[in-house]
Amino acid sequence: MSKPLNIGIIGGGFMGRTHSNAYRRVTNFFDLEYQPVLKAICALPEDAARSFAERWGFESFETDWRKLIARDDIDVVDICLPNNLHREVAIAAAAAGKIILCEKPLAMNTAEGQEMVDAVEKAGVANLVSYNYRRIPAVTLARQIVESGKLGRIFHYRANFLQDWTIAADLPQGGDALWRLDVAAAGSGVTGDLLAHCIDTALWLNGPMVDVNAMTETFITERTHQLTGKVEKVGIDDACTFFCHFKNGSLGLFEATRYARGHKALYTFEINGEHASIKWDLHDLHRLEFFDHADDSQVRGWRSIHVSDGDHPYMDHWWVPGLQIGYEHSFVHQVADFLTGIAKGEAVAPTFRDALETQKVCEAVLASAKGHSWQQV
Amino acid sequence: MSKPLNIGIIGGGFMGRTHSNAYRRVTNFFDLEYQPVLKAICALPEDAARSFAERWGFESFETDWRKLIARDDIDVVDICLPNNLHREVAIAAAAAGKIILCEKPLAMNTAEGQEMVDAVEKAGVANLVSYNYRRIPAVTLARQIVESGKLGRIFHYRANFLQDWTIAADLPQGGDALWRLDVAAAGSGVTGDLLAHCIDTALWLNGPMVDVNAMTETFITERTHQLTGKVEKVGIDDACTFFCHFKNGSLGLFEATRYARGHKALYTFEINGEHASIKWDLHDLHRLEFFDHADDSQVRGWRSIHVSDGDHPYMDHWWVPGLQIGYEHSFVHQVADFLTGIAKGEAVAPTFRDALETQKVCEAVLASAKGHSWQQV
Amino acid sequence: MSKPLNIGIIGGGFMGRTHSNAYRRVTNFFDLEYQPVLKAICALPEDAARSFAERWGFESFETDWRKLIARDDIDVVDICLPNNLHREVAIAAAAAGKIILCEKPLAMNTAEGQEMVDAVEKAGVANLVSYNYRRIPAVTLARQIVESGKLGRIFHYRANFLQDWTIAADLPQGGDALWRLDVAAAGSGVTGDLLAHCIDTALWLNGPMVDVNAMTETFITERTHQLTGKVEKVGIDDACTFFCHFKNGSLGLFEATRYARGHKALYTFEINGEHASIKWDLHDLHRLEFFDHADDSQVRGWRSIHVSDGDHPYMDHWWVPGLQIGYEHSFVHQVADFLTGIAKGEAVAPTFRDALETQKVCEAVLASAKGHSWQQV
Amino acid sequence: MSKPLNIGIIGGGFMGRTHSNAYRRVTNFFDLEYQPVLKAICALPEDAARSFAERWGFESFETDWRKLIARDDIDVVDICLPNNLHREVAIAAAAAGKIILCEKPLAMNTAEGQEMVDAVEKAGVANLVSYNYRRIPAVTLARQIVESGKLGRIFHYRANFLQDWTIAADLPQGGDALWRLDVAAAGSGVTGDLLAHCIDTALWLNGPMVDVNAMTETFITERTHQLTGKVEKVGIDDACTFFCHFKNGSLGLFEATRYARGHKALYTFEINGEHASIKWDLHDLHRLEFFDHADDSQVRGWRSIHVSDGDHPYMDHWWVPGLQIGYEHSFVHQVADFLTGIAKGEAVAPTFRDALETQKVCEAVLASAKGHSWQQV
Repeated sequence: MSKPLNIGIIGGGFMGRTHSNAYRRVTNFFDLEYQPVLKAICALPEDAARSFAERWGFESFETDWRKLIARDDIDVVDICLPNNLHREVAIAAAAAGKIILCEKPLAMNTAEGQEMVDAVEKAGVANLVSYNYRRIPAVTLARQIVESGKLGRIFHYRANFLQDWTIAADLPQGGDALWRLDVAAAGSGVTGDLLAHCIDTALWLNGPMVDVNAMTETFITERTHQLTGKVEKVGIDDACTFFCHFKNGSLGLFEATRYARGHKALYTFEINGEHASIKWDLHDLHRLEFFDHADDSQVRGWRSIHVSDGDHPYMDHWWVPGLQIGYEHSFVHQVADFLTGIAKGEAVAPTFRDALETQKVCEAVLASAKGHSWQQV
Repeated sequence: MSKPLNIGIIGGGFMGRTHSNAYRRVTNFFDLEYQPVLKAICALPEDAARSFAERWGFESFETDWRKLIARDDIDVVDICLPNNLHREVAIAAAAAGKIILCEKPLAMNTAEGQEMVDAVEKAGVANLVSYNYRRIPAVTLARQIVESGKLGRIFHYRANFLQDWTIAADLPQGGDALWRLDVAAAGSGVTGDLLAHCIDTALWLNGPMVDVNAMTETFITERTHQLTGKVEKVGIDDACTFFCHFKNGSLGLFEATRYARGHKALYTFEINGEHASIKWDLHDLHRLEFFDHADDSQVRGWRSIHVSDGDHPYMDHWWVPGLQIGYEHSFVHQVADFLTGIAKGEAVAPTFRDALETQKVCEAVLASAKGHSWQQV
Repeated sequence: MSKPLNIGIIGGGFMGRTHSNAYRRVTNFFDLEYQPVLKAICALPEDAARSFAERWGFESFETDWRKLIARDDIDVVDICLPNNLHREVAIAAAAAGKIILCEKPLAMNTAEGQEMVDAVEKAGVANLVSYNYRRIPAVTLARQIVESGKLGRIFHYRANFLQDWTIAADLPQGGDALWRLDVAAAGSGVTGDLLAHCIDTALWLNGPMVDVNAMTETFITERTHQLTGKVEKVGIDDACTFFCHFKNGSLGLFEATRYARGHKALYTFEINGEHASIKWDLHDLHRLEFFDHADDSQVRGWRSIHVSDGDHPYMDHWWVPGLQIGYEHSFVHQVADFLTGIAKGEAVAPTFRDALETQKVCEAVLASAKGHSWQQV
Repeated sequence: MSKPLNIGIIGGGFMGRTHSNAYRRVTNFFDLEYQPVLKAICALPEDAARSFAERWGFESFETDWRKLIARDDIDVVDICLPNNLHREVAIAAAAAGKIILCEKPLAMNTAEGQEMVDAVEKAGVANLVSYNYRRIPAVTLARQIVESGKLGRIFHYRANFLQDWTIAADLPQGGDALWRLDVAAAGSGVTGDLLAHCIDTALWLNGPMVDVNAMTETFITERTHQLTGKVEKVGIDDACTFFCHFKNGSLGLFEATRYARGHKALYTFEINGEHASIKWDLHDLHRLEFFDHADDSQVRGWRSIHVSDGDHPYMDHWWVPGLQIGYEHSFVHQVADFLTGIAKGEAVAPTFRDALETQKVCEAVLASAKGHSWQQV
């Protein structure tokens, strides 16, 4: 018989929805010791909080996150807020002894991230950062292939994350769904938003980076700010590219932009090893491309693996072979794994400490771009 | 404020899961007048029914479908049973004045299907058959393109549904998940299981058929029967191919098999019109291929539409552009549309009457194959 | 030191060009005992013949094919004429003791084809029919895979050839490049033109057919005839579909049309075997798709083989791995193989006798469509 | 009536073959004022020169390039030699008043390249560098789209050239086909060999670069040298990555490597503009991907243009729509354009002066990698 685990989500935006959805669904598909209970949502204004609670079946709502954290009936604090609020909320939640799931990136910068790591480790609370793409079955399969040693020595890792939603010059910055354009709320542009995902996956699949060399660009330098109503300087990076050395001797190449017309959310990565290579892309997230040089030379070619079989990671929990799952399911897997870890008393990656490594790379990337020079991670 | 609508699902197999999932999720994403309530699941044995109820949050369970239909607190009877049980259950549910959602194909044959149509129409109850692929956004978009008239005169419609899960000769027939191999339970093999989907979509997109010419094959002629434990003759069609004339003058070509190594659930269709063509495939269900001859000749080509934008059918209810949904969401859309229709007092396609047309084509196909001759629909 | 082999080509159209090109190029890439010499082209009117000879480097030209055949300095008669002229020219060439390469289809019908087979066999002259697609490296590789036995028992063979060039109703029939629309010159429409290719490949890869069941359609029933200037009834099939049984127990499905908007020359085939499957398509002719069920289940997928390595058929004669060759090269390979066979005194497939089998299938297909019934091959 | 133009090719390797092939074929497909005559090939040793001449139909052969240049019966000197010989031969040919076609890259470095530019301009001889990829029809089409202004403001240009042929550690360097691994013969590794192609295309499609920031790597640091028989230090770059600013304000990202397992010759580029984007890849060189944001939003998607229609660049000279040409044809187009320019007395791009710009970028890239810093071009 499963035990209830009371969830309090702070933030009722896009990520608030993906997390609520995950908690609601997870035990329909996974056998867990804990049954998540949607106890409280915290959002603003009050109407939004009430309506979010109704739609998603939360038992209650709050408009002040401190109140939510103060409640005894909350076991897990799930932070779905803009980046500039992660630190304060997470530290308070840790101090209150709550389990914490925090949206990525961990923090505005490494210093903040370090404080957060210290807080959760001091409090001894389970903690996880929502780098959800790790748990798309094809990406998890990539990790299994890497761990199998099939690739041999790694030569190259490349990733990019291409979007096109901010090309219009009359798109405002700041407030609601557009806080990602406001440097005060986001800390950075595509680096923290998109490259952070690419870096998290890369560190997971290919190990730590040694140094980076980056270039950033802001194509549209002024936009109306929704909070002030005035045209203000844009402080974020619209595009960021960097190359790097990995500790294992391979070279990395990363790029993110919101100005790649034709791509909505094209996160792709590729790993080239001595014996085999792997490619993946978020626009067809249910496939993994795999090239095995050990195949007989006449019939050697890139395999397009339709990651929908019972043998594939997580897939035995869903439908039948051949039938796709989608983006949202990565959050369900994340919750399944996190709750399993809590039940076992085991840390689940990426913890705050793991995510701090991604933060450090982001910081080095931004410093390199600013200083026009290589930067140690 | 939404009104509760009490759901009773009969059948706790694969389709029982997809339907339960749809009812649980629909109001998280769609604003509906009715709120479905998972009132009762009916399954066998009792343990399975209880555990299904727990997992999916049904308030109660039954082991006798007659009891479920007899309950006053059930508004909708949702039939997720093998084909040979559709008729009896549906007629009883209609007699009890229940709203009915029935899995496809409608019935074992046209005669049964006609009885069922008569029953629901006499009872005046809302009814729908679960040809869920209509409500995959890319397929719905195909319909919108057809309706726009962009294709011009239609010349060709072709579809196939290729699987490979029954190639192993030691796979038994009958019982549980394998009733689809048992002609007594399924009525036919790939014709009712796979071609029925292809035909439903075709009739929806391209209008009625006039006549058909078919070939069927049973590659593995004997299999152990799980219910008897004996090796028995296989009565189903392992593969079926037919061509046909549509009323609009176009030619149709259809094929289904469970012996196409390398394809798990490759349902594809293509429509060739005078001015434009459309292609779709279930293995990448979030894409629609579109060729428009009106494009400037130098830059004319098949467009791969990533059907994930807010402008695409149903997609404004989900996440953000570029992020895929999957197979299961077609059932959510089906429930959303059905409940909307019920609220408005409007029929929602495909009704039992609509599905009877698909049944007639299936029957003509099987008769043609048996008689080695053209058959009027 | 290579010996000259004098070539006389009859017909200066599209195929006259592809054959001339092949003879001119073959010894740049293949080491052959014979060096083809472009001795004479026969075409009409005289201006066209002269200019063709100049462009392609023929030593002389003719306007009467009987004269070309009568010349002692011609070793090979290469027939690139409309179908209705194959019989007479081939029989005359055989009577003159010439080696013969004849464009496909062999003849207007089986009776003609039989006469031609008898003629070349009686004369004992080397002979070949230009089913050039066999010698696209990816198709030859498909044959090698089939011969390796990797596929196991074959269940399905399907092929189609989709074009869209005759959709315009004001396209005339007959004369010059449009003789393919004139039943008097072509004998049939897509059946002899396109399906003949599909059938030749199928017989080569999957063995003989037992019986066929076909449907044909003429979408545009009247067109201006270029030779008469009048609107005349269209006698050809615009589209043809058939299914069949192969002798090996597998099912076949074939379709050709010139009304598939968006496809220029989309010849595709697929073979589904118990253990593995193969797909190919002429629009990306340098690739072969291969699925091997023997691969480890986690990393199993369709392989896209870029058929450009030195290990691939014919490819060691061309450039370096990764660099594509194209359509025309199939004719170069055909000439290379034919001349090698001549040097060795060995028949090279498909001979007239081989091509007669394809003719028989075409004839059965047309008879089936006309008679609305199954037809033995 | 066309006039003969006598060609002397220096170098009988891979490029000697592609150029010979182009001259032999060009007037079969293009109407030119000049008819190239394969007058002399220069290669070593003598046997190789003789056999090359025989195979390709050269009237004579030489083993000393000075003799070839000294011959009065040579109009065009075509340089297909390793990079370290370009300068001396080109300058001598210019001094002799010859028309010059030189393989890429222009030279070992900018200083050499400048000398060569000065020499041909002083001599007033027609000159061209063989950046053949410009003349693949899909790439030429990309240029036409760029020139049409359809893309709007350009944000991003990215290209890579991925190969895997030098992964084996026991592959020697130097001599014959392996001079590309020998820094003394090649000047650099992938930068001059592969990136030079990417840069040439980029400058052509997107205009000049301002500054670059690069990283190079040599994965295998010692290899047996074929000329000395000893294990020697590898002096070339095995991989090179750089990003840059273009003068038009867009960002560039380039990568080349010979250690990308699974890719034989995967040259790809992509341009992202405000209104439209373009992608191309050498492994499917007959296709161009095009995304036009001006398309109706519901049916907007990347178009896969099969560049085989009569409306496409160069394609009206070849076969019929739908039929692919390949790699080698880019050289035929190059010769067609060059001979047309010579006839008209017009320079044909890329001239030596144009190619010097690519050389400058290569030099800046290598300097940046060495200096670990941004470098002005």
